[in-house]
Parts: sequence; structure tokens; C-alpha cells
Amino acid sequence: MTARSRTAPADWPIVTLTTDFGTADHYVGALKGALLSVAPRLQIVDITHHVPAHDVAAGAWALRNAVPSFPRGTVHLAVVDPGVGTARRPLAVLASDGSAAFVGPDNGLFSFVLDQDPGARVVCLTRVPLPAAGVSAVFHGRDLFAPAAARMALGADPLSLGDPVTDPVRMEPPAAPAGEGGRLRVRVAHVDRFGNVILDLHRSAVESWLQGAAGARLCAPGQAGGTCVSLPLVCTYGEAPQGRTVMLWNSSGFLELGANLARASEILGLRAGDHVELEPEVR
Amino acid sequence: MTARSRTAPADWPIVTLTTDFGTADHYVGALKGALLSVAPRLQIVDITHHVPAHDVAAGAWALRNAVPSFPRGTVHLAVVDPGVGTARRPLAVLASDGSAAFVGPDNGLFSFVLDQDPGARVVCLTRVPLPAAGVSAVFHGRDLFAPAAARMALGADPLSLGDPVTDPVRMEPPAAPAGEGGRLRVRVAHVDRFGNVILDLHRSAVESWLQGAAGARLCAPGQAGGTCVSLPLVCTYGEAPQGRTVMLWNSSGFLELGANLARASEILGLRAGDHVELEPEVR
Amino acid sequence: MTARSRTAPADWPIVTLTTDFGTADHYVGALKGALLSVAPRLQIVDITHHVPAHDVAAGAWALRNAVPSFPRGTVHLAVVDPGVGTARRPLAVLASDGSAAFVGPDNGLFSFVLDQDPGARVVCLTRVPLPAAGVSAVFHGRDLFAPAAARMALGADPLSLGDPVTDPVRMEPPAAPAGEGGRLRVRVAHVDRFGNVILDLHRSAVESWLQGAAGARLCAPGQAGGTCVSLPLVCTYGEAPQGRTVMLWNSSGFLELGANLARASEILGLRAGDHVELEPEVR
Repeated sequence: MTARSRTAPADWPIVTLTTDFGTADHYVGALKGALLSVAPRLQIVDITHHVPAHDVAAGAWALRNAVPSFPRGTVHLAVVDPGVGTARRPLAVLASDGSAAFVGPDNGLFSFVLDQDPGARVVCLTRVPLPAAGVSAVFHGRDLFAPAAARMALGADPLSLGDPVTDPVRMEPPAAPAGEGGRLRVRVAHVDRFGNVILDLHRSAVESWLQGAAGARLCAPGQAGGTCVSLPLVCTYGEAPQGRTVMLWNSSGFLELGANLARASEILGLRAGDHVELEPEVR
Repeated sequence: MTARSRTAPADWPIVTLTTDFGTADHYVGALKGALLSVAPRLQIVDITHHVPAHDVAAGAWALRNAVPSFPRGTVHLAVVDPGVGTARRPLAVLASDGSAAFVGPDNGLFSFVLDQDPGARVVCLTRVPLPAAGVSAVFHGRDLFAPAAARMALGADPLSLGDPVTDPVRMEPPAAPAGEGGRLRVRVAHVDRFGNVILDLHRSAVESWLQGAAGARLCAPGQAGGTCVSLPLVCTYGEAPQGRTVMLWNSSGFLELGANLARASEILGLRAGDHVELEPEVR
Repeated sequence: MTARSRTAPADWPIVTLTTDFGTADHYVGALKGALLSVAPRLQIVDITHHVPAHDVAAGAWALRNAVPSFPRGTVHLAVVDPGVGTARRPLAVLASDGSAAFVGPDNGLFSFVLDQDPGARVVCLTRVPLPAAGVSAVFHGRDLFAPAAARMALGADPLSLGDPVTDPVRMEPPAAPAGEGGRLRVRVAHVDRFGNVILDLHRSAVESWLQGAAGARLCAPGQAGGTCVSLPLVCTYGEAPQGRTVMLWNSSGFLELGANLARASEILGLRAGDHVELEPEVR
């Protein structure tokens, strides 16, 4: 791992925030105050603060879907940190092409970065200049991660803030879609605000699968009765009659089950973490 | 419709956001990333992301009430878009005096602008430079509307982004308050966080009505028992005893039913979409 | 009280917002529009808009915990204002060292500032340049407080916006922790998103108390059965087994009852406003 300096600092640096802090307490405000104390000109963008408490996988999912929309040089600060104050390491991750950086706890939050970019550099944040008042054992977001993220947004090389790490914690990957006679078993990664059910199945991973198919037969073992349903593959919800469940490749490239002006999650009885089985249908 | 260029771009352009995306998913973050990819210095302001899913009228109401507070040159991006990806057109609307612009789907979201400003120019966004990765059929907010809004905030003439439209979709206007013996039938436009019940009755439309009156008799047909109640017209909630329902002209000029330190919506049993009848009382 | 001008205006002024407006209505957006109409370059930071409606003490608590994280010169705008439009005065408060300023209603919201900084100067906002459209009797946040806060962020001396006040409303202080045989009776100030129970007991006020103790015995009179429980004093939640209730000095210096990956508030049956009794244990 060679020390490679960051690209020139952006004139208008951006830091995004992904946390499980909620928005009713003062925590997000304090985090932003700490960022602005280092870098008053920051453009701060909330991805979400409503990650379910301590749910590292859900935080990673939100971040992973938002990252591609941000310009080169954005620093992504993510704090879903059930182990705050314990021996878990504070990390920075820098994309191998310098296009993005990540700051947060070493608990798997950034596994998706390392999966997609094995050359990304990882640093343990041992040399972050700390607030004069000291570091709280229970609010590293404010006292350690925010100062580090703000400095990186201003152009600091992560290696000036700590030492290389070669064994970051990796989230256990979801069982890859397992094929058997063209049948795939897939995890429900997320249910969104509209009741759309997003499967952890990316277009790029199953290029040939569904090719030429008009849709798929979906069986959800946990579903009442365990019945199966045929879902047509469409481009937009509006193509289907109201309430009809369909599937489409969503705006992030994942397979999504939805319903026109209705909640597919309720129609299909599916929640994040469930598994479904899919089989292409030609018809 | 003559091509008229926008006023000089603001040094510190503002884009507001009004959506039904909620704040738990990554959608708002992605929208902001797309805006900042075009215009990194933007001042982005959330009006609300808690418009009920697919409720175009509610989105229009929130936007309409917020718009007058923003400085000249603000671009308002609104995405409540049940028809995303279908044939519904993507629009930009520019106030006839250039004071504000609007970007979003052609589904009536901007009817209030056209009602108040018949000279506003409307453009179908057919020539927006699109993201290299292409346009998702289900996330025009990120891939089409945000790039257009950011360019307009930087000073682009809407006519450089598309072609004039003369028949934008108009929301069916609520039945105008119907008078009969001084009695008005009015729609409940909104119930706010405090339980205040806002009627779709603007001061400017009924200047003489209520003049000299000390209040009004309100009958809500849907209300339990269908009973009527007399509401005094006050300036502030604090004038009334705690829990007493009153009426006042609110901060946007609409007639509002409220209660001092209590929820008028619960006391009166009213919800958005209900209708009430009002008759001035002199007393 | 001598007229002392503010420190030089910050190049990148910050205004924070703490309100009970919620985020579903247009109110926060309108407030920000009003701020930007005066000062387009502002860095606006939401502390929270989810203060329970009309709960002045809860608003003050959120603000008080966030303030120390912000850089010198930040203006804190707080609107929890059950008395809006009545005779209650609109105030600005300026820290005696000029490090921070506060704008909002005279109802005790800023008691904590005056408690900590008796030399803070207080001004009644009688000379704020008002919006051309006039001042709504029910939205002083938008029409009076925001213009004042924006001007102060740009460097205006509060005394240019009004006249000194010597008798601001003070919140009744919670009964000080009352000692009896080493036993303290303390109020629950707040329950946060994670179910942590924060007591209104600051480390600085009870320096010697708990010294050398390994924890404390907690009795909550309102608790089912009124039973007592022993809580070890730890540094981080992660030190304890999952679900074990513990106590620690939190990131703001207050005593906090928490549980590793569980909700202490539910385990202990405690809510904001409850009182508990604490007795150090050496063990």
C-alpha cells in the first residue's frame, strides 16, 4: 500500500452523513457543529439519520445506494456504531482512484466499498487532532469521526490521520443468489417508503438471467400459505394496472418488486431480511 | 411566448425540495448529490419530504405556502410523481417576472403558480444534459429534474432545456367556497403538526366576508352528531382560554381553525379533504 | 450594561434551528427562506424540529446539549413558542464573551445560557427591520426571529435591533439534586432515540459524589413495584453484557442510564420528567 496523497481539495467540499441517530435528539446537530468547527464552508448532506438503531447492514445499504450520485471528492461519514468506545477501530477508507472517501467505525459499514474496489486504502484513525475538551467514550461521531471527515474534505491525506490497516472488519456477505434449475434464492435487502421491496440482486451479477424473460415466478416461503405469484418485468410502475405487483430493475440497478400506487411489501408480505425464490418466466 | 432569458444567475443560488420520498431511504441524499454534481455551491433547502406518498395536492399545498418566503431567483424542485416513467411530461415553469422557477412532473403540482400568474412560461424538459449512466425510468428526480433544476439555478434559460408547452396538466380546483345566504362551503386543505385546521379560503378572495363579524358558526357535516360550533375570530391562539377553539387568518393568509395549546383537528374531528360550512356571526 | 459590538462577522456565518415545527409542514422551509432572504450565504444547521409541541424545557435541553459543538460566532435560533403573538417579548441573548448568540421568545428557552453566563446581555427585539408584507401574529419565527437572527449572523449588534432587558423569563430550575445521607433525588431530563435515560445531573455539579464508587443504587418510585436496582458505572455501553443496565457520564457531561444494545428506558420504566433516587455504591 503506497502512500498516495488525495486529489487536490475541492473548493466546495461535501461531507455526507448516514447515521442511526434519528432527528429528535441533538446528536446530528452536534455532529454538524463539530464538522463546521474544522471546515466552516462544508456542504453537508444528510443521506439519512433513520437507519434502525445499531443496524449496520441497513446503514451500509443506504450509503451504498447514495454514493454514486455524489461528485468526485465527496467524503462520506457514516456512524452506526453499536461498539462505540470499545476496542473497535475508527477507520477511514479512500477509493483507489481518490474519487470518494469514507469515515466511520470498523464494523463492516464499508464492506461494500472494499467489495467493489479491492484497491481501496484503509487507515486506522490514530492521529486525528482531537477537540480540546477531549473525546467522549460514547460520541466518537462528534469527537473523532467528524474532525477526521472535515479534515479529509479539506484535502488531508488519510495517512496523515492514522496508520494503514489490512484487515478491516467485513460484513458477512448475504448468501449469493443460489441457482438451481434457473431458480434463484435472494435476500430482501430493503423495503422503502413506498413499500417497494428491493432484492439484493444486482443487474450486473445476473446479466444473462431473466434475459428474454417476460417476468419471473416469485415464491416467498414465509408468506401466508407459501403461495407463489407471477410478476411481469416492466420499466415503470405506471405501466401496470393500479395495485398490480410487478418487478423492475430499479434506479440503483437492483431488482425491485413494486405495485402501481400500492405497497408491494404489504401485498406480498415481505420484510427486509426475508428470502424469496425467483424463476424466470417466458410466457 | 417569447424566449426571455432568466435574470442574471444568483451568486448564491437556492434550490428548494418538496417530495414524498420520506427521509429514511437514500432518495433525498441521491437527489442532492445529483444537484451538487452540477452546481456544487448550491444552497439546498428542504421544504418537506413528508408529503403523503403520491399526494400531489398535499405537495402543492406545502410548496405554495413556502414559496413566498424565498428570495428572488429561487428554483423550487418538487417531486411527487406517481406517473414517473410514463408519458407524463417533465416540466419547468418560470414566473412571468423571473422571480421564481419550478421543476417537476406535469401532474398539477404547479397549478397554483399558473392560477396566480397566468403569464408564467411552461417548458417540457426535452433537452436536459443527462447523466452519463443514463436515466432510470423510476427516478427522474435524480436523473432528470435535479440536473435541470441545478442548471436553472446557475442561470440557464428553461428554453435552452426544452420546448414551450401550452397545455400543462391543471389540478382540478377545489369547489370554490359557495355562498348561499352568506354561508360558505369550504374544503379543509391541511391539518398541521399542531392540529391546526387550515381551510382553502384565502383572505384576498373573501375580503368583505367576515367583515365586522366577531367570528363564524362552523358546521362540519361529517362530524359526530353533525353539530355546529361558534368560533370567535382572533389574532393569536394565546388570546383564548386553553383548549378553546378559535379561528384566525394564518401566516399565509388562509383561514385557520385552532385551539390554544390543544389540537383543534381532534376537538372538531376534521381531516384534510373534509368540507365545512361557515356562516359569519356578529354577536 | 454597556453597548458592546459583536465580534467581527464570520465569513461563513452559521445559524442553528431548534423548533417544535416538525418536518411535515412548510414551516421550517419558510423559516429558512426568511433567513436566506436576508443572508443568502448562511450555513443553516437543524438541531431538531421534533421538540414536542410547546415543550419549552425539551427545546432548551436539545439546544443546551448542541451549543458547545459549534464554532465561535454561531447564532442559535430557537422557536418553541406557545405564547406567539401575545405580550411575551421577542429576545436576543449575547454571550458575555461574544462567542454565541440566541434568538427566540422570552419564555425560559434561554435560561440555561443565563444560568451559565450571568453576564450575558439580553435585548428585546423592538427594532428588527420587518418584512414588507408585515408580521403575522402567529409566525414570529419567520417574520421576526429569522430576520433578527440573520442580521446578527451578519454581524449586527443586538443593541441595534432592540433595547436591553433585565428581567427575562427564567425557567423554574428543576429541584437541585437533594442530598440526604449521600442519596440524591434527580429528574430525568430526557430519553433519547436509543432509550438512554439522561439525568439532570452534571458531572461538574457533583464532582466528589460517586468518587471512588463503582456505581449507584437507583430507586425509581414510579417504577412498577418500586424496586431498586444496582447500576455499575462504566465508560461505554459495550463494556457490559447485552441488555445489562449501566450508568455513565455522557458526551455532554450528564449522568446517563443505558443498556448495551437495549433500551434502558423500557427496562427501567422511566420517562422524561420522572424522578429517581441515587445512592453511591462502593462494592
